[in-house]
Amino acid sequence: MIGVYDSGYGGLGVLAHLRAALPDHDFVYLGDNGRAPYGGRDVGTVLDFAEQAVERLIEEGCEIVVVACHTVSCVGLRHLQRRYAPVDGRFRVLGVTIPGAELAVRHTRGHVGVLATARTVASGTWEAEIHKLDPSVRVSQVAAPLLAAIVEEGWEDSPVARDAVARYVARLPGGVDTVVLGCTHYPLLLPAIRQAMPDGVLVVDPAPFVADRLVDWARRHPGRLEAGSGALRVLCTGDAAAFVLHGARFLGAPIPEVIPIAEHQGRLAHRGASASPAGQVVR
Amino acid sequence: MIGVYDSGYGGLGVLAHLRAALPDHDFVYLGDNGRAPYGGRDVGTVLDFAEQAVERLIEEGCEIVVVACHTVSCVGLRHLQRRYAPVDGRFRVLGVTIPGAELAVRHTRGHVGVLATARTVASGTWEAEIHKLDPSVRVSQVAAPLLAAIVEEGWEDSPVARDAVARYVARLPGGVDTVVLGCTHYPLLLPAIRQAMPDGVLVVDPAPFVADRLVDWARRHPGRLEAGSGALRVLCTGDAAAFVLHGARFLGAPIPEVIPIAEHQGRLAHRGASASPAGQVVR
Repeated sequence: MIGVYDSGYGGLGVLAHLRAALPDHDFVYLGDNGRAPYGGRDVGTVLDFAEQAVERLIEEGCEIVVVACHTVSCVGLRHLQRRYAPVDGRFRVLGVTIPGAELAVRHTRGHVGVLATARTVASGTWEAEIHKLDPSVRVSQVAAPLLAAIVEEGWEDSPVARDAVARYVARLPGGVDTVVLGCTHYPLLLPAIRQAMPDGVLVVDPAPFVADRLVDWARRHPGRLEAGSGALRVLCTGDAAAFVLHGARFLGAPIPEVIPIAEHQGRLAHRGASASPAGQVVR
Repeated sequence: MIGVYDSGYGGLGVLAHLRAALPDHDFVYLGDNGRAPYGGRDVGTVLDFAEQAVERLIEEGCEIVVVACHTVSCVGLRHLQRRYAPVDGRFRVLGVTIPGAELAVRHTRGHVGVLATARTVASGTWEAEIHKLDPSVRVSQVAAPLLAAIVEEGWEDSPVARDAVARYVARLPGGVDTVVLGCTHYPLLLPAIRQAMPDGVLVVDPAPFVADRLVDWARRHPGRLEAGSGALRVLCTGDAAAFVLHGARFLGAPIPEVIPIAEHQGRLAHRGASASPAGQVVR
């Protein structure tokens, strides 16, 4: 079983590409939308949440987890890979930033722009990963904290989206030839981003390439990914009804029944469908 | 000493009104901008953060804390008041939602609208507090998650702001006669909000009234608030330089030197001016 973990809905876009590439495999998606966005959070909190999510996916039976959230991939992938390399060496955590960096280096003529959350930009990981592949490439990052929130509202095709995108794109320096979408929400803003971008600038979404890389990994590690029946199980924190409603836009297909999970004593546990408590909370 | 606690910058607007009303008193402001926004977070996390902040302000020497964040006021004020009622009964925690409800009831002709964060709306506290004062008043809440982020970008006077405000205002039902700003960021959007609002709808900001209520409380509790020299000390989590830069817009005055604090073993401790670690974090 393949686990896909994201801070919210965005990873469903990555999941769509993974399922198209590996249609016979079973997937478990964990969306931490109750605690999203991660982009403005401190590093310790992001690592805590990521550990809880990976542990939940291990308990669900996953033997590989794709971290579909760029913020977690940029800040905590190495930590997760070290912590959850089990005794048999078979459990595996993969991210989205390294494939994204490969894609950017493959396309650029020398100057890559990155649009991402504030936490992702502050990590400097895009620059580091691109420079591992080609130290001569210039990397210019722009933090775009509003864009994920605009997509969560469903306002991709609106003056809000177009003006915010234009303001962030204007912060990219001249000479950028390839812009990589460093947040899984941004592919839904592709029309607005392409419209705001100067002529000749290529905009690339890492998601399809993440799927290509996983297929390639499976080919190089025969027997590690067992085919199943193409099933999909979806878990989420926060509002399950909102997840079903909004998630379909990212998955490009209806969301199956959602299993609600919530933090309980430092773990993400299955819970009843009860909502967050209303009013004043005393503990 | 009077502590003022907010999840970020917004409470600086409340602080400005408090200082104007009590110019001889000393204030300590704690902005948790490193972990803002609170609006989308689960209740347990909000209570944890609020406890850490109140405990830090107690350690700074505060004998009263004004919770200037509507999200915390709506979800956790009762919890904080119970937990930090000390043996001598003198330490005091006050919020902003009850004054806001009083103000709304004072002005409405029967139907109050509330613009607020998702967490504040979900708490139902505005409705509860307004109904304690007048059960006949109808209350219609709209969650406006983008607005605080727009203000944090400094884009109050932009198509982004005007279109987002118009979209949220359009979600208020007909018949609303008074709209209360249920988040301390929103006063900076007052021109956009007034422009989007139908004629005859009154928009009210609770902040000046919160200051009036504190002055009134001090009058009814003589000897509890000792005058000082009008000093201001500012503590914040997250990026101190950004806090100085953006905070001035909310305070309406330059921000004095900021004392950086950070979560360390479950407490908000003073820390060096070091920023958040870059790159992959392994722990």
